[in-house]
Amino acid sequence: MLTIFFKAIDKVVFLNEEEKATLTTLFQIVNVDKGSFLLKEGEICKYEFFILNGLARTFYINEQGEEHTSMFAFSGWWTGDLISFQKRSPSKNYIQTLEQSTVLRITHSAQADIFKLVPKLEKYFRILFQNRVVALEEALEVRQSQTAAEVYHAFTKKHAAYMNQIPLKHLASYLNITPGYLSRIRSQKKY
Amino acid sequence: MLTIFFKAIDKVVFLNEEEKATLTTLFQIVNVDKGSFLLKEGEICKYEFFILNGLARTFYINEQGEEHTSMFAFSGWWTGDLISFQKRSPSKNYIQTLEQSTVLRITHSAQADIFKLVPKLEKYFRILFQNRVVALEEALEVRQSQTAAEVYHAFTKKHAAYMNQIPLKHLASYLNITPGYLSRIRSQKKY
Repeated sequence: MLTIFFKAIDKVVFLNEEEKATLTTLFQIVNVDKGSFLLKEGEICKYEFFILNGLARTFYINEQGEEHTSMFAFSGWWTGDLISFQKRSPSKNYIQTLEQSTVLRITHSAQADIFKLVPKLEKYFRILFQNRVVALEEALEVRQSQTAAEVYHAFTKKHAAYMNQIPLKHLASYLNITPGYLSRIRSQKKY
Repeated sequence: MLTIFFKAIDKVVFLNEEEKATLTTLFQIVNVDKGSFLLKEGEICKYEFFILNGLARTFYINEQGEEHTSMFAFSGWWTGDLISFQKRSPSKNYIQTLEQSTVLRITHSAQADIFKLVPKLEKYFRILFQNRVVALEEALEVRQSQTAAEVYHAFTKKHAAYMNQIPLKHLASYLNITPGYLSRIRSQKKY
């Protein structure tokens, strides 16, 4: 069950069996139904999550009462609300599973212990956060300079394996366009 | 000269004199005039920069030929184009000093050595990138939910010590409003 988790870490640092055992004690495995909320607006995010299997989306509700999807998390991805988790402040986001999912979760205090108990993970998380900075900056750049159709084609190319898991209404919300406009983009040939 | 640099690191990890000496060999100190470019659009970002003294801004030029300021870097801050630096891809940004500045710079290959030579820096950079993820996500949230006036007041509160260094036209560009509208915000009482 944890194979996908240790595989993700092994890409960066080699953990021995003892370190893996230690790490296992810091996390809990949770099975959640499709449509469950890992986090709701106003709550302080108690956990960081690692998706072992399944799919989750992060969204917020704007002043007009509309849902806006800001992120998808696929199998092998981390999710959570880092601002709320780090600052112990109420979250502005919801995180909801889009299918039956199995997730690892770690509390704030266990997170603080992780680096004392398994110092090698500094490198793993340094690279994880570094990549997340790059991804966030790319997302900002892309939205500044590309059309919705271009963003859609780049997204489908990057996440081809997961495309049939994502309901179109959430994809449209992520692209900040209407479902009708997304259908038009999808019916056009990619040029 | 390097005091501010080692002070920033010392907040997170304690480096001994040998480690500080090693680190010093990996960086170059450069003095740059006001208005100099640390990076131009189309170049591959060769360095990450640490501002010892001075001020820099990152901006890009949109399709209408307008400059948009996306970030300021004050004394004690890192700057650069992480996407271009990591992926060796042409940058979409300019980085320009707004006053005479002294900066530390490190090349891509020296960056790769840093963690072999001073492994303690994994923790420093893990926390640096973690904080940058939080800051980027906050900036996104703020822009989604706050008015320009609210963003302005939050920015001036957070960076009070630096406010007289920033030309208003660049601040307006950062807030994505006209200089005239920024003047109106500044002339209104904060409620």
